[in-house]
Amino acid sequence: MTRSTTPSSTVMSRADLAFQLHEWLRVEDLLTRERYAEHSRDTLDAVLDLAETVATRHFATHNKRNDQEEPRFDGERVHLHPEVEEALAVYSASGFTGATFDEELGGLQLPQVVASAVAAWFQAANCGTAGYPFLTQANAHLLVAHGSPEQVERFVRPMLEGRFFGTMCLSEPQAGSSLADVTTTAAEQPDGTFRLRGNKMWISGGDHEMGENIVHLVLARTAGAPAGVKGLSLFLVPKHLVADDGSLGERNDVVLAGLNHKMGWRGTTNTLLNFGEGAHRPGGEPGAVGYLVGEQHRGLALMFHMMNEARVGVGLGAAALGCTGYLKALAYARERTQGRPVGAKDPASPPVRLVEHADVRRMLLTMKAWVEGGLGLVLYTARLVDEEQTAEGAAAREEAHRLLEVLTPIAKSWPSQWCLAANDLAIQVHGGYGYTREYDVEQHYRDNRLNPIHEGTHGIQGLDLLGRKVVAEGGAGLRLLARRIRETTDAAAARGGDLAQDAAAVQAAADRLVAVTATLWSAGDPRVSTANSSAYLEVAGHVVVAWLWLQQAMAADGDSDLHAGKRHAARWFVRCDLPRVHPQLDLLERLDRTVLDVEDAWL
Amino acid sequence: MTRSTTPSSTVMSRADLAFQLHEWLRVEDLLTRERYAEHSRDTLDAVLDLAETVATRHFATHNKRNDQEEPRFDGERVHLHPEVEEALAVYSASGFTGATFDEELGGLQLPQVVASAVAAWFQAANCGTAGYPFLTQANAHLLVAHGSPEQVERFVRPMLEGRFFGTMCLSEPQAGSSLADVTTTAAEQPDGTFRLRGNKMWISGGDHEMGENIVHLVLARTAGAPAGVKGLSLFLVPKHLVADDGSLGERNDVVLAGLNHKMGWRGTTNTLLNFGEGAHRPGGEPGAVGYLVGEQHRGLALMFHMMNEARVGVGLGAAALGCTGYLKALAYARERTQGRPVGAKDPASPPVRLVEHADVRRMLLTMKAWVEGGLGLVLYTARLVDEEQTAEGAAAREEAHRLLEVLTPIAKSWPSQWCLAANDLAIQVHGGYGYTREYDVEQHYRDNRLNPIHEGTHGIQGLDLLGRKVVAEGGAGLRLLARRIRETTDAAAARGGDLAQDAAAVQAAADRLVAVTATLWSAGDPRVSTANSSAYLEVAGHVVVAWLWLQQAMAADGDSDLHAGKRHAARWFVRCDLPRVHPQLDLLERLDRTVLDVEDAWL
Repeated sequence: MTRSTTPSSTVMSRADLAFQLHEWLRVEDLLTRERYAEHSRDTLDAVLDLAETVATRHFATHNKRNDQEEPRFDGERVHLHPEVEEALAVYSASGFTGATFDEELGGLQLPQVVASAVAAWFQAANCGTAGYPFLTQANAHLLVAHGSPEQVERFVRPMLEGRFFGTMCLSEPQAGSSLADVTTTAAEQPDGTFRLRGNKMWISGGDHEMGENIVHLVLARTAGAPAGVKGLSLFLVPKHLVADDGSLGERNDVVLAGLNHKMGWRGTTNTLLNFGEGAHRPGGEPGAVGYLVGEQHRGLALMFHMMNEARVGVGLGAAALGCTGYLKALAYARERTQGRPVGAKDPASPPVRLVEHADVRRMLLTMKAWVEGGLGLVLYTARLVDEEQTAEGAAAREEAHRLLEVLTPIAKSWPSQWCLAANDLAIQVHGGYGYTREYDVEQHYRDNRLNPIHEGTHGIQGLDLLGRKVVAEGGAGLRLLARRIRETTDAAAARGGDLAQDAAAVQAAADRLVAVTATLWSAGDPRVSTANSSAYLEVAGHVVVAWLWLQQAMAADGDSDLHAGKRHAARWFVRCDLPRVHPQLDLLERLDRTVLDVEDAWL
Repeated sequence: MTRSTTPSSTVMSRADLAFQLHEWLRVEDLLTRERYAEHSRDTLDAVLDLAETVATRHFATHNKRNDQEEPRFDGERVHLHPEVEEALAVYSASGFTGATFDEELGGLQLPQVVASAVAAWFQAANCGTAGYPFLTQANAHLLVAHGSPEQVERFVRPMLEGRFFGTMCLSEPQAGSSLADVTTTAAEQPDGTFRLRGNKMWISGGDHEMGENIVHLVLARTAGAPAGVKGLSLFLVPKHLVADDGSLGERNDVVLAGLNHKMGWRGTTNTLLNFGEGAHRPGGEPGAVGYLVGEQHRGLALMFHMMNEARVGVGLGAAALGCTGYLKALAYARERTQGRPVGAKDPASPPVRLVEHADVRRMLLTMKAWVEGGLGLVLYTARLVDEEQTAEGAAAREEAHRLLEVLTPIAKSWPSQWCLAANDLAIQVHGGYGYTREYDVEQHYRDNRLNPIHEGTHGIQGLDLLGRKVVAEGGAGLRLLARRIRETTDAAAARGGDLAQDAAAVQAAADRLVAVTATLWSAGDPRVSTANSSAYLEVAGHVVVAWLWLQQAMAADGDSDLHAGKRHAARWFVRCDLPRVHPQLDLLERLDRTVLDVEDAWL
């Protein structure tokens, strides 16, 4: 049943990536900056070539096996397929672990937007195996930004060399969305280290036998810390202690309590970890040895450094899974024959390919609009990270940061919703075959279904956007977004024709979004303002994606099939999808209280 | 990992069923009719009590096992869990196999609407195990309507006694949606029997070792038959031949070629069957022995007798899975504590139950609107079957038939789309736990995902509705639907207040639906008229469900929590969900050609 050969053309579209990176997002403009001065279009292409090859030959090949025979815990050790460690060795040897890190640390110093395109190949090919290095990279980024030089030396270097892996340990069995209720404790020792005790739930990559060590970043509460998130500190807790010379020391008291058995994304172990329950007592003392990262009580703020990156990463993974599902459905629809078009009278005429049916073409065009729109959203966001870090002038960097703040919950949630919906359509295009595990698309759906949940559910993202991001700095982020949208719609209007018409629709939706935001906050009661925050999140996402589709359509002004496809997908999104926002805006505008008024007993 | 005890309160809501059957659909009114004269409210309640008990104690208990250890084919035989056959023995002994059949055949002669409520319990508890008797019942219904008295005696009686099982064999590996391309042949023999040769794909319940025999109903093509669906005839092909005295004879040449491995609904075997490939040659002759049902070349029309019933059955199953997912999410949200409501400042205050969060309540209310709306749609449709069969006067029966024709594609597809969406929300309410296989809701999603595919995909239903049902008899069906909607909105308007306001919204949407239907067909070109038939199907479904929600709201005019919940869910559906139709109506109204204009090479 295991299908081990997936052509690279159904993993990601190299042509679409090239269009988005170069024709639309003008990545070459970044190469004049000092940080990226070593790179050229040629080196970037070579990196993408390598990503395509490694993803197709070493990751896609065991994607189905990861799903069908999931990791197994025998009570002592976790067993993964040997292909996982082999694939990660190639990944690391290819330099991808350090893609965005400084050369000084052994990194490639790639722009974030290019590293995101690289990551898309691995997420699309095998998100289960890709989970391990991606978590490691996010962990290492946090330590580079906030850890001590010694922590970087002792833990980050081995991670970037592929010898150590990393995790993030936030949730507990009783505290998922609500980190205020984290109860893991950290007791300071005379030598300045801490001893941690508690249980952490949903820890991806929490245990396995790959590499030499696992570096956990753990939120915990020190003695006397305030209640809630303001009392959380961040600790580095390695599975094996590491001596001053870098050699591995004693086993730390971090013990796997069990694996979670998931609907999908089965290749990445997801674990319940016990800290300091006494199975291993380094130095004979109780508790797992931990090292404070940054200052005490600043744990959540530091973790958000990792979490913002992880959230955009979730959006990227969702978009990548959407893309591969679309490409597989398209390949299937071009190959499989079935029935005759509406209006064909002769039953003896040969059947036509699925793609000839209007409703199948509708599904394919819809998928294209969602997955290339979702990918574009995430790449645009990644491009903002590059601006935030390397743009000339503090004002430009500040502006990029401000826009990034507003876009992060959208970049996390929109692809998680709509590229998942695209995976659903990919099943539908395949008909009964799509519902079987012989084909890939049902797995893509199940894998992608995690994305609306982890790193903050849709509900959390909606509150983050409406309750925090668009009201921060007196609404400066939303005003900036509105100005950027206006620049695009003005430019599109100047082109005339269909583009001008579509620009007007985007502008009208954006205007309503700004107006409704003011209306919501004029309600005075935050419960009323945020009662329909999920609808707000969806509306904002659709407006943003429509705006970026308009940009893609303007960049696609040539005669090629690719350009024609971009213009058509943009038009379909603006004309068929964007109008969904208006009924939702109506709901928001009238401060609909239905969900507040319904009583528990009525449900 | 197997959880074997599901309380009946999270399988189906007995209170909601009682409301829908009695307060809304006034099932007692049927009991004055001769066919149902033996029944009373008490006997109907007793039947529902028994369904609840059998479904909860014998079906729900192995639902997870069906999923986690799916049926296995050892090359000779299919192995199911013993609980499946045990459950079906209790089901059959309880009389449920013959629920709607004549007493003379050993049936209970229940109204279809009550039998549907009974079936909902089994679909919700364990759709995999329920699949076997449900297919058998549909098969038996067809034979009672169109088979010979001898076929009824020899095959239907043993099916209703639970000794034989039945299937429907339409699709082939190359012909799923397109039955015109069926290639299985049937060669007439001198004794009037036929010999069948061909391969049938996606045959649910196609093989297993339960009972004594399996009765396949097979579409095939006789020698010299016309091309296309007009050349199809229907054959009864038993796994084991049956002698005149009812005793089992030779093994027929129907051989299991393999099981399909599905995303969900794993408890029902789904098979590729080979007919007449020579593994068994009854009487030494090649081909599987088959008996013509009805007349030659009328096969598809006869099969539609079964298929219409099966399509409403699909909608029922989708609604039932939606209901159980909703009830489980509701129970979880009332029990699990997490975080504090928006505006709460004190992190030391105890966490609240999930149901206290506005966004969780939004998801629960949305689910309620979808699943109770979907169930209502299917029960209303079943009630029409009762009217079609037993109403006084030919005109009333004709009218019921006409409305049923229009509602069938909607009753099939709407719950398959929106109760599936409710299952998705049930996962979301559970957070990370919902994504694990320790809880039930991810399985409900996977099981339900079949429903938009089998018995005609959404695409097929859209073409059936727009291309056939609303244009039949000069549009009489749609006019009738519009008149019924008007009666309801007039009555609701007369009540004033919120109901009147909601009635106006439903009427406005219905008016647009009628107008847009005329616009579509005025296009003159069927390709253009049907280009967006899926959008049409969704719009029609939402209008119909809003109309029926209005009826439920009017029936719920008391002070109870149940009545208040009904009114609130109706209001939420009309105010939050129904408005989605307007952008879709805009697309239809302007005869949007985007999907026709996009070229294959642009995708």
